Amino acid sequence: MLDLSENLKKMNKYVKVFAPATVANVICGYDVLGFALNAPGDEVEIELKKTPGVELTEITGDQGLLPRDPLKNTVTATISGILEKIGRKDLGISVKLHKKMPIGSGLGSSAASTVAGIFGVNKLLGEPLSIKELMPFALKGEEIACGHGHADNVAPSLYGGFVLIRSYEPLDIIPLPTPEKLIATVIHPQIEIQTRDARKIVRQHILLRDAIEQWGNIAGLVSGLYRSDYALIGRSLEDRLIEPSRAILIPEFYELKKNALALGALGFGISGSGPSVFALCDNLKTAQNIKTMVQSRFEQVGVNSHAFVSSVNADGPRVLSVQS
Amino acid sequence: MLDLSENLKKMNKYVKVFAPATVANVICGYDVLGFALNAPGDEVEIELKKTPGVELTEITGDQGLLPRDPLKNTVTATISGILEKIGRKDLGISVKLHKKMPIGSGLGSSAASTVAGIFGVNKLLGEPLSIKELMPFALKGEEIACGHGHADNVAPSLYGGFVLIRSYEPLDIIPLPTPEKLIATVIHPQIEIQTRDARKIVRQHILLRDAIEQWGNIAGLVSGLYRSDYALIGRSLEDRLIEPSRAILIPEFYELKKNALALGALGFGISGSGPSVFALCDNLKTAQNIKTMVQSRFEQVGVNSHAFVSSVNADGPRVLSVQS
Repeated sequence: MLDLSENLKKMNKYVKVFAPATVANVICGYDVLGFALNAPGDEVEIELKKTPGVELTEITGDQGLLPRDPLKNTVTATISGILEKIGRKDLGISVKLHKKMPIGSGLGSSAASTVAGIFGVNKLLGEPLSIKELMPFALKGEEIACGHGHADNVAPSLYGGFVLIRSYEPLDIIPLPTPEKLIATVIHPQIEIQTRDARKIVRQHILLRDAIEQWGNIAGLVSGLYRSDYALIGRSLEDRLIEPSRAILIPEFYELKKNALALGALGFGISGSGPSVFALCDNLKTAQNIKTMVQSRFEQVGVNSHAFVSSVNADGPRVLSVQS
Repeated sequence: MLDLSENLKKMNKYVKVFAPATVANVICGYDVLGFALNAPGDEVEIELKKTPGVELTEITGDQGLLPRDPLKNTVTATISGILEKIGRKDLGISVKLHKKMPIGSGLGSSAASTVAGIFGVNKLLGEPLSIKELMPFALKGEEIACGHGHADNVAPSLYGGFVLIRSYEPLDIIPLPTPEKLIATVIHPQIEIQTRDARKIVRQHILLRDAIEQWGNIAGLVSGLYRSDYALIGRSLEDRLIEPSRAILIPEFYELKKNALALGALGFGISGSGPSVFALCDNLKTAQNIKTMVQSRFEQVGVNSHAFVSSVNADGPRVLSVQS
């Protein structure tokens, strides 16, 4: 048990927090890179209550898709894990989850909820844990939600900005710089792809020469982020390993990509395991033009879509309101 | 033909230049990363002469191994290419090459000679070409010397410091930062490995999960170089793809590696395609201890070796003397 006497003095009665949606993989960084968005994201309200235990009193915006059982819902299950870790299972916690982003979209929906929950409860309890200490709970949340503890959504949602997961064993999270001009356009076509299926479609045996191109590109992208070199970022946003397998799941993918690049996108690719697609741009006008182009094209082929144009979230989750 | 009238006014009569040896691959950056050393390196003397044509008047230190025919020697052949490019085949150039480093060692021996030659002749002629414009000639030199135009030795020798070759087509060279404390120990065991054989031994089909680890590591290394984060550099210097194939060619490789890491090396691996091995360290004492340890162990198994302890060369080739 941690010595929390000092921190727990600063407990609050109520917090409402936001945690950002995220784009994992970032074209050339399959399984190791992600970045956070300023919009969309999920909101969680957390309140102290008198009777011990963690309860889930409300979920909005999920169209009934998420589990109501607090042992199975990723938000409340990870909050319970934190209470156990800090030796405060005696506390009573009441949780409301407001889904403000599509589920199963490839935007890290479960990650945003999980991160909002763990960040929120940590804030409620006077921040007994550091961001780094919260990471294992975030991973646990992904395991509950998706069946595997991938970090490429939860890490950027929790840390903000671009994040490298250099290694899983041991877990080594490297926050990267966020060049200030970067704007993302994210478009979610309303078709369904299961992450598990999207993972299965990826070839597990690859050619060394393709891998060499990929590690040249990820090294170029990281260098571009440090230098705020938008042209280098653009040249590095290429993927000949994963994209060819997954692109077939997304209507008109190659046409959209060609058009987005012609409109001035630095890069265009699949967000996480899809079906959302995204463009990174160095100005708002380009980002908006790409949003219009992609949504019109989806509409032409009879696919409804949601779209978001957002700067990169450099700060991670944030407190929306607090009552002490 | 370029407009060189202004530059050619500044021609010199004689230059002597040094170009650095290099460590390619740098453990986790197979075919895309390299760095330059302050020692060893090759020296070239270049002098204007009256009769047109490029002649090779002397090679020292090569034990008779290199071609004397100026059309076949990489130094003079690439110098001829430059004269052609700038439209000055009327000039007469006399070249002496002083090999100051072992040939076939995995330290970019041919690259250092080629780079000294092209950098030197460019200096002699009043710098008509930029470093970027010299790169294609450096690649051509590698093709003449080794049968393939790899850039991971010539690029760091020409640019200095750590260099990323993000892409070959089109060629995209990204100079990376050089953290000032980095010291390399390079040990050349006197056994023979042909680069072509060393390339053949590398598996061309690999597992995606191994490639993911590798691109996590190269992204971590690049990040560590930008942040001068020596611990991160150390954690990133891992290779489970190429090293296992090539290590079998080097006596006691895994014992040397284990001991080097125990002595405080940030990383230990094979330089280029070997047989030289190298350690990157964050202080001179560690680098020297590793030199002693590796050389003693080689001696115990009956292998003679040369060793070099050198800071990373951040500036590339340099002029040793010039007569205008």
